[in-house]
Amino acid sequence: MKLSEILVQFSSALLLLFSVTTLNAQQAFHPPVKIGVLPKGKYNAITDVKGVKVGHTTLIKGDDIRTGVTTIIPHEGNLFQEKVPAAIYVGNGFGKLAGITQVKELGNLESPIILTNTLSVATAINAGITYTLAQPGNEQVRSVNVVVGETNDGYLNDIRGRHVTEQDVLSAIQNAKSRYVEQGNVGAGTGTVCFGFKGGIGTASRVLPVASGGYTVGVLVQTNFGGVLEIAGVPVGKELGKYFLSDQLNQQADGSCMIVIATDAPLDARNLERLAKRAFMGLAKTGGIASNGSGDYVIAFSANKSVRMPHKKEQELYQTATVHNDDMSALFLAAIEATEEAIINSLFTASSMTGREGNKVSSLPKNEVISILKKYNRYQP
Amino acid sequence: MKLSEILVQFSSALLLLFSVTTLNAQQAFHPPVKIGVLPKGKYNAITDVKGVKVGHTTLIKGDDIRTGVTTIIPHEGNLFQEKVPAAIYVGNGFGKLAGITQVKELGNLESPIILTNTLSVATAINAGITYTLAQPGNEQVRSVNVVVGETNDGYLNDIRGRHVTEQDVLSAIQNAKSRYVEQGNVGAGTGTVCFGFKGGIGTASRVLPVASGGYTVGVLVQTNFGGVLEIAGVPVGKELGKYFLSDQLNQQADGSCMIVIATDAPLDARNLERLAKRAFMGLAKTGGIASNGSGDYVIAFSANKSVRMPHKKEQELYQTATVHNDDMSALFLAAIEATEEAIINSLFTASSMTGREGNKVSSLPKNEVISILKKYNRYQP
Amino acid sequence: MKLSEILVQFSSALLLLFSVTTLNAQQAFHPPVKIGVLPKGKYNAITDVKGVKVGHTTLIKGDDIRTGVTTIIPHEGNLFQEKVPAAIYVGNGFGKLAGITQVKELGNLESPIILTNTLSVATAINAGITYTLAQPGNEQVRSVNVVVGETNDGYLNDIRGRHVTEQDVLSAIQNAKSRYVEQGNVGAGTGTVCFGFKGGIGTASRVLPVASGGYTVGVLVQTNFGGVLEIAGVPVGKELGKYFLSDQLNQQADGSCMIVIATDAPLDARNLERLAKRAFMGLAKTGGIASNGSGDYVIAFSANKSVRMPHKKEQELYQTATVHNDDMSALFLAAIEATEEAIINSLFTASSMTGREGNKVSSLPKNEVISILKKYNRYQP
Amino acid sequence: MKLSEILVQFSSALLLLFSVTTLNAQQAFHPPVKIGVLPKGKYNAITDVKGVKVGHTTLIKGDDIRTGVTTIIPHEGNLFQEKVPAAIYVGNGFGKLAGITQVKELGNLESPIILTNTLSVATAINAGITYTLAQPGNEQVRSVNVVVGETNDGYLNDIRGRHVTEQDVLSAIQNAKSRYVEQGNVGAGTGTVCFGFKGGIGTASRVLPVASGGYTVGVLVQTNFGGVLEIAGVPVGKELGKYFLSDQLNQQADGSCMIVIATDAPLDARNLERLAKRAFMGLAKTGGIASNGSGDYVIAFSANKSVRMPHKKEQELYQTATVHNDDMSALFLAAIEATEEAIINSLFTASSMTGREGNKVSSLPKNEVISILKKYNRYQP
Repeated sequence: MKLSEILVQFSSALLLLFSVTTLNAQQAFHPPVKIGVLPKGKYNAITDVKGVKVGHTTLIKGDDIRTGVTTIIPHEGNLFQEKVPAAIYVGNGFGKLAGITQVKELGNLESPIILTNTLSVATAINAGITYTLAQPGNEQVRSVNVVVGETNDGYLNDIRGRHVTEQDVLSAIQNAKSRYVEQGNVGAGTGTVCFGFKGGIGTASRVLPVASGGYTVGVLVQTNFGGVLEIAGVPVGKELGKYFLSDQLNQQADGSCMIVIATDAPLDARNLERLAKRAFMGLAKTGGIASNGSGDYVIAFSANKSVRMPHKKEQELYQTATVHNDDMSALFLAAIEATEEAIINSLFTASSMTGREGNKVSSLPKNEVISILKKYNRYQP
Repeated sequence: MKLSEILVQFSSALLLLFSVTTLNAQQAFHPPVKIGVLPKGKYNAITDVKGVKVGHTTLIKGDDIRTGVTTIIPHEGNLFQEKVPAAIYVGNGFGKLAGITQVKELGNLESPIILTNTLSVATAINAGITYTLAQPGNEQVRSVNVVVGETNDGYLNDIRGRHVTEQDVLSAIQNAKSRYVEQGNVGAGTGTVCFGFKGGIGTASRVLPVASGGYTVGVLVQTNFGGVLEIAGVPVGKELGKYFLSDQLNQQADGSCMIVIATDAPLDARNLERLAKRAFMGLAKTGGIASNGSGDYVIAFSANKSVRMPHKKEQELYQTATVHNDDMSALFLAAIEATEEAIINSLFTASSMTGREGNKVSSLPKNEVISILKKYNRYQP
Repeated sequence: MKLSEILVQFSSALLLLFSVTTLNAQQAFHPPVKIGVLPKGKYNAITDVKGVKVGHTTLIKGDDIRTGVTTIIPHEGNLFQEKVPAAIYVGNGFGKLAGITQVKELGNLESPIILTNTLSVATAINAGITYTLAQPGNEQVRSVNVVVGETNDGYLNDIRGRHVTEQDVLSAIQNAKSRYVEQGNVGAGTGTVCFGFKGGIGTASRVLPVASGGYTVGVLVQTNFGGVLEIAGVPVGKELGKYFLSDQLNQQADGSCMIVIATDAPLDARNLERLAKRAFMGLAKTGGIASNGSGDYVIAFSANKSVRMPHKKEQELYQTATVHNDDMSALFLAAIEATEEAIINSLFTASSMTGREGNKVSSLPKNEVISILKKYNRYQP
Repeated sequence: MKLSEILVQFSSALLLLFSVTTLNAQQAFHPPVKIGVLPKGKYNAITDVKGVKVGHTTLIKGDDIRTGVTTIIPHEGNLFQEKVPAAIYVGNGFGKLAGITQVKELGNLESPIILTNTLSVATAINAGITYTLAQPGNEQVRSVNVVVGETNDGYLNDIRGRHVTEQDVLSAIQNAKSRYVEQGNVGAGTGTVCFGFKGGIGTASRVLPVASGGYTVGVLVQTNFGGVLEIAGVPVGKELGKYFLSDQLNQQADGSCMIVIATDAPLDARNLERLAKRAFMGLAKTGGIASNGSGDYVIAFSANKSVRMPHKKEQELYQTATVHNDDMSALFLAAIEATEEAIINSLFTASSMTGREGNKVSSLPKNEVISILKKYNRYQP
C-alpha cells in the first residue's frame, strides 16, 4: 500500500472515529454508506416516532457478565389501560419470545417491549408484571401480557448464571428516554455477536414523502446472528474471508435477531403484521440467512394515538381511521430500509469485547470495511 | 318428588360419593355417564400413555392462596437431550402460554410441560430452566425452551400476590408419578372455575381398536372457562339455569382451558398439530365457547420412543416411522372423546372452595346433575 | 312396541312431514329439538342477515349426475368495488377451497362465495371471473379473487364427468334470493352425504340480546362429513348403530364441510377469523371429527355497510367503527349454535337419493330419530 | 466517455450477447456478476435437481396476447400415486395461488406445479385435473389438489381475454424437459414486468459442500414485481433512476413473484416450509419489497425418492430418513442465493416486448447495467 493510500484510509478512520465520538455527544449515527432511497428521521432512531422511548440497563461485571436489558416504550401513558395495535412476525421461531399469542389474538400490546438474554426472559416477564400491577389505575389488574424478546449472548456472557435481575429490567423501563438512542454494546446488545463481529443494539428510521403519507418508521434491533455479511450490498463478509461456510463450517451462522418497529402511521394489527414481515427483508439484505438456530422475530406497533385500544371501552364501538391496504407499500419500503440500516448501525457502533472464559469478539474492522466500501465505490462518509 | 324417587337419587349420590372415595384409593375415576364410543385406558388418565408422568403442587394457605402447579413429563430420561415431537394449537390466544414458537419451528419439546396460574408463568419458566441446567449431561446447555401453560385463578386466589415459587414448580416436577392421577382441586387446578362451578384438573384416555393401530391417547386439562355446560350432550347448564347470557350477562364465560395430549402413536409434529386441533372439538362438546377472554391452548406430544429427536445427532439423518395421514382419523376421535371426558371429570372431582375476599365457588351439584342425567336418560353409574 | 307407541311415533312423523311440507311453502325450517339458548332469526337462515342472498343450481340428470352450485352473495351492489371484511378459517385443509390467501392478506372478499363439488372449483372460479369482469364499473378490472368452496359428492355423483358448467354457476349467482332458503338436496348439497345419511345444504341463524348488541349471525353449510352423529347432544349415531369405527372401519368419516357465516355486526377481519373458528365448535357438537380426509373450512364476512372496503379509496383513511374484542363472546355463541343447527337442518331436510352406479344414500330415518329424541327426552316439535 | 471506455463496454456487451447466444445452444446462463458464495449446478437451473423437469407454452399472438404457461414436474412417475413432501410459504398473499391448504394439511404435492397468468388459474386447475384423471392408475381418483401459481401480465397481455387454454397447459406438462431450461420471455413469464423492465422466467441452482450434505437446491421464478432493483447488491435501480417512489409514485412496485424450489435433500414438510421462507430473503436481496399488490409465494418440494408419500400405503408406517433441523442452515443459504440469482437471470434473459394497447416494456439495459456493475467493481463476465 502506498503512503498516500494509507493516509487516505487513516483519515477515513479518523472521520468514522469522529462520527462515533459525535455520537457520544448524542447526535444521530449514520453509517459511512448510503442505504436505501428514503430520507431519515432526525435521530435516525426508533424514537423519531413520536412518543416512543428506549431504555437500557447494561451489565458488564467481572470477567464474565456481559449482558443487559433494552426496553421500548410505545407511549408515556398507562399502556395496560391504553393498549396499542401491534403484531409479531416470526422469521425463525428458534427463540423464547414471550407474549406472541395474545398479541396475535387481540391485535394489541399492553406492556413495554423488553429485550434481554435467552435465559432472562422469565425475569423480564416478572418485572413487566411488577411494573404493570404497580401502575396507578391498575389496582384491579389480574392478567397482563408482557412481550419479551431475547437473543443468546452465551458466548461472551455467563448466561447460565442468569445475572439479570427484576430491578435491572425495571431500571431499563424507568430510564427510557425519547430522542437520542445509545447503540452498540449497550442493554440487551451488550454481549451479542453478529456475522462473527461484535453486534449489539442498532437503530434507524425512515420518513415517507408527504405524498405517501409523510409517516415515520423507526426500527431498533438486537443483533446476534450470522450469514454472509453485506453492507449496502457490498460483499464485506466475502472480502474479509469471514462468513458462514467459509471455513469448514467453523463460522456458525446461529444466533438470533430481535427487531422492533414503531410507526406513527395509524395501522391495524393486520397491516402491522404485514409491515413486520418486511423487516425480515431488511435483515436479508445484510446477508442474514435466518439459520436453523436463529430466533428471529419482529414486533411492530402503531404509536398513533388515534388507534389506541382502551382497556375499558369508552364508546360502544372501536372507532378508527387506518391506512388503506393500497397505501402500505411505501411503509413497507421504509421498514426494509430502516431495518437494514439499524443492523449495520449496530455493527458500526459496537466495540470489541472480551468475556466469559476469555472469549473475545472483535468489532467490525472499520478501516478495512472502509477500504472495502471504497473498493466497491460505495464509501460515503 | 316421591319417596321412592328420593331414595333412588340418594343412592345415586352415594354411589358417586363412593366412586370419589374409591378415587382416593387411587383407582380410575369415571363420570356417571358414557362419553363417546371408544374404550378407556386402565387409569382413564394421560398416564395410560406409557412413560408419561404427572405431578402436582397444591397451594392452599390462609384465606386467599388457592393455586398451584401441575407438570406433565413426557418421559423419564433427559428431555433436553432426547426431545419429543410436539405441537401446540391455539384455540383462543388470550393467554400467556410460553414456548410456542420454538415448538412450532422445530417440531419438538425439550422440557417438562408446566401448568400454573397466569401471573406465575415466569416463575415456572425459571424453574424449568433451573431443572434443565441442573440435569446431568446438560452442563453445556445455554438455551432451553420451557413450555408453560396457565389459566387465571384470580377469583379464588390472590393471584397478584404471585405465591408460586420456583421450588413449588420443581417439586411438581420431582414428585411426578405414573399411573393414578389426582384430579379436581389440585395443582394448577386448585383455584379454577369452570362453567360457574369449581373446576380443576381432569384427565381421561381412550384406546384405539387394534385395527386402527391400538394406540392410546391421554388427555389432561386445567379447566377455567365458561359457556353453556353440557355433559355428554345433556343440557345441564340450561337445566341449572346457569350459563353464559342466562342472567343479564352476569355469567361470564371468560377464563381459559389448558389441554395436554399425550399419545404413544408415532406422530410427527404436523400430525400432532392436527391432533391438538381436535381436542378443541372435545372442549366444544362440553359447551365451551372459547370466549374472548379465554386462553385456550392444546399441547400435544408423542411419547413413542422411536420418534425422539436427539439433541446431538447420532445418525446422519433423522430416521422415523410415523403414522400415515390416512390413519389419523381414529386418533382424532380419541382426542375428542378424551378431552370431553377430561373436562367433565374435572367438574365431578372438584369440590367447593372459598378463597380470596370470601369468594366462594360451589362444586357441580352432583345430586341435581344426576337427576338431570336421569331426566334425559343418560345416567350410567 | 305397543300400538299406542306406534301411534305416537306415527303422529310425530306426520308432524315433521308437515313441517317439511310447510317448508315448501317457504317458511323457516326448525328441527324437532331445541339447539342452544339463543333466539332464531325470522327465516332461521343466513338470509336473516340483511342484504345477504342465496342462490342454487341443482343438477339431477340421468342416473349419475347429482351435483350443483350454491352461492352466497354478501350484498347487492358491486362486490369488487365495495368489498366486505372477511376471513377464512381452515378446520382441516384436505380440500380445494380457492381464494384463501388474498382474503387473509387483505382482510376482505370481492366476489360472491360459490360452493360446488371438488372437481368443479375451477369452473366456478372461471364463472366468478366472468361475472366480475362483466359487471358495469369493472371494465378495467384485470384481477379478481374468487372464493370457491367444495365438498366431494363423488359417491352419488359422476364427479369425474365434471358436469357443472360456468352457466350453472352464473345461474346460481343470478337467481340468488333473500329471505327463504331452500335446504337439503339442492345446489352444492345435491349429492352430499353426512354421517352416512343424505346431507346437503342447511342453514340457521341466531339473534343476540339487545344488551349484547342485538346482532344477527347467519350460517349456511354444505354437509358431507362423518363422525359419530349427535343431535342436540343426543347420541343418535350410536343408537342407530351407524358411526365411525362402528363397523370394522366400514363407516368412513371422510368427506368435508363448508360453512359460511354472515353477520351484520361490524367486524374487522381479525375478529371475523375468530368468529369463523367458533363455527368449527358447532360442527364438533354434531359429532363431526374433522377426519383426515375432510376439507373443513369456514368463510365469515360482515354484511354491515359501514365496514365496507372500497376498491378506490374515497377518503384518505379507512374509517370504521367495529365491535370491541371484549364484546365478541356473544357473537361466538351465536356462531356455534347456528352452525350446529344448520348442520342438523341439512340432515332433516335432505331426502334419500340414488345416483352413480346405483349407489344409494338414505335420508336420516326421521321416525327413528324422533323416537330417539323422545327416549332422551329431547323431542320438541 | 473515452473511446477506450466505449470499446471496453462494447466488448462487454458482446460478451453478454455471446452468453445469451450460447444460451440458445442450451448451455447454462450465468449473470455477469457473482451472486453469493456457493457453487452452482451444471445447468444453473432447477433441473439440476435430479428428476425435475420444466415445460413452457409461450403464447405470443397478434398485438395483445403475451402470456403462457410454465410447469415444474417433481418426478417422472405418477405424482398422484407417489406424492412428494411439499410446503408453500406466503410472502404476500395478494394473489390467486391454488392448492395451498391441502399442501399445508397433508404436507405433500400430488400434481405438477403450474404457473400462468392471474385470470387463467382456473383453466390451469382444470388441465391439471384432466391430466391426473387420465393418467394410467388413476381411474378411481375423484379428488386431486392442483397447485397453480400466477402473476398478472395484464400490462402487456390482454389478460381479460383469457387466452390460455387447457391444451396450452397440457402441452406445457407434456413437453417438460430435464436439463436446459429456457428463460426470459417464455411460458408464464412471457408478458411479465420486473422492476419496470421486462421480467420473465428465471432459474438458478446451488450445490452444498459435501460436508454440508452435498445436496442441490434449484429455483425457478416468474418475475413480475417491483421495488428498488439491486444486482448483487449494486444499486442498479437508483443508478438508472428507475425505482419505486422515484418519480412521484409513478413507478408502481406492484406485481407478483412466484418462486419454486426443488431439492434432492430428504426433507419433511416442516423443513420445506422453512426452506421456502428463505427464498423470500433472496427476493429481498434483489430490492423487491413485497408491495401491497404483490402476490409472492414460494412452493418448495423434495425430489428425493426416499421421502415420497404413497397414495396407497405399502407399509404400516411411513418410513423416512430426513435432514436434522441442525443441518438446515446450509440449505437455507443455498435457497437464498439461488432465488436471488434466478430473479436476476430472468432480467438478463428477457427481451423488450410490445403488447396490449401498444404498451412497451424494455429489457434491462444491459450495456448500462454492465457499466454500473463496473462502476461498483462487481462486473465479472
